[in-house]
Amino acid sequence: MTSSQSTVRVRYAETDQMGIVYYANYLVWMEVGRVDYCKAIGFHYKNMEIEDGILLAVAESHCRHVSPARFDDHVVIETTVTEKNRRMVTFSYEMTCEDRRLATGWTKHIFLDRSLRPVRLPQKYMELFGM
Amino acid sequence: MTSSQSTVRVRYAETDQMGIVYYANYLVWMEVGRVDYCKAIGFHYKNMEIEDGILLAVAESHCRHVSPARFDDHVVIETTVTEKNRRMVTFSYEMTCEDRRLATGWTKHIFLDRSLRPVRLPQKYMELFGM
Amino acid sequence: MTSSQSTVRVRYAETDQMGIVYYANYLVWMEVGRVDYCKAIGFHYKNMEIEDGILLAVAESHCRHVSPARFDDHVVIETTVTEKNRRMVTFSYEMTCEDRRLATGWTKHIFLDRSLRPVRLPQKYMELFGM
Amino acid sequence: MTSSQSTVRVRYAETDQMGIVYYANYLVWMEVGRVDYCKAIGFHYKNMEIEDGILLAVAESHCRHVSPARFDDHVVIETTVTEKNRRMVTFSYEMTCEDRRLATGWTKHIFLDRSLRPVRLPQKYMELFGM
Repeated sequence: MTSSQSTVRVRYAETDQMGIVYYANYLVWMEVGRVDYCKAIGFHYKNMEIEDGILLAVAESHCRHVSPARFDDHVVIETTVTEKNRRMVTFSYEMTCEDRRLATGWTKHIFLDRSLRPVRLPQKYMELFGM
Repeated sequence: MTSSQSTVRVRYAETDQMGIVYYANYLVWMEVGRVDYCKAIGFHYKNMEIEDGILLAVAESHCRHVSPARFDDHVVIETTVTEKNRRMVTFSYEMTCEDRRLATGWTKHIFLDRSLRPVRLPQKYMELFGM
Repeated sequence: MTSSQSTVRVRYAETDQMGIVYYANYLVWMEVGRVDYCKAIGFHYKNMEIEDGILLAVAESHCRHVSPARFDDHVVIETTVTEKNRRMVTFSYEMTCEDRRLATGWTKHIFLDRSLRPVRLPQKYMELFGM
Repeated sequence: MTSSQSTVRVRYAETDQMGIVYYANYLVWMEVGRVDYCKAIGFHYKNMEIEDGILLAVAESHCRHVSPARFDDHVVIETTVTEKNRRMVTFSYEMTCEDRRLATGWTKHIFLDRSLRPVRLPQKYMELFGM
């Protein structure tokens, strides 16, 4: 199964007064992960939007926090696709820092056109996703 | 069952280039919801941290997106507690805009002390949560 | 001179590990202030974008931090327009919490069309801004 | 004069419905720049906080936007120190994308102890900053 690895350096902006990363930021890191995953399998998400007018809207997200990330941590995001068809795709993520597991999660997406109506994924992307 | 209502006005900062609210921001609105819920049942989360050194760390979060929120929308967040014991609490949320359901979700929290070690919730908060 | 007042309740998400509000969030509060200012003088910024295709792009921003805002603080943003012509407008802001001054700042904007090209402000908005 | 270079890849989360990066995010990139600058001159900002209890609080910030950054752009942040003494330091930034200038700005900081009271910068950091 294809997977991609991304890295982010924790920003001060991403911490909160608990001294750890605020939980919503893990969803932003998941976005970093799936954008890189798309590059890894052969396309730029940016161009899918611009050239083909296909948007990847989030239908559902889930995150389980295991160990807190802190400012300046070097976080590795491993991304895979765990479910896919012409209507939707699910990305799964594992976030670690020096082999310490920080969080796991997944996001489920549907494909939309520019008017935000559900569409089927065009054939060329089907192939890139291995469908 | 106790529930609380909060409102947020969607900020331009919360939108993304899809023209709708970026998904991680719903988790921030959930935070607004649970802070207000705590006030509704009789305490300020801020003071629980300062006076009693109890932190409410997020262990898990989930959000299902039904309909997109847009800039300047008036969002209502309804918050309830759907699970609770001395070690953890689960808040559930429903977000709507003029009776249109935007999203539902929940966050599961554990209680930590200032050193981020799990602790039991002190008796006075147990009572406020109705335990 | 017209001015408008807005209020925000400080979110946990807006704090950082220093225990105070992260500085970039003051710029988000300025946005809250100017959106309310537009409502106060008679139009919805949202509709200016949708109906007239006029965007208010930030050309310059400045903020001076006097006293830190903290989680759950009730922040009042007072917004005025301190410079204006057909090409640009400058909003000025004062942010306070219970009469303690938190920050002052200003943002300078140019008017753009949907293709992000500079345009002159249409007459109807000129009048609302008092030009 | 010492300068450091940092890079960020624009996140979808950082865009807004104008289709460009929301202005407050440039201040977050400036933070990325100054954290890297500190590493370039020989210390980790993280450790200055943890080990010496010195905080670098933002007293003032300024940003001028020249050309918009967009999703997935590869942004280079060049950071220098343009003013410094025992009480404060000013960082200046230039942000570019493939030689297109996006924005310039500066942030002025004062040194605080853990109780957020102004302090003089310890000698070892004075030397690293070249004072």
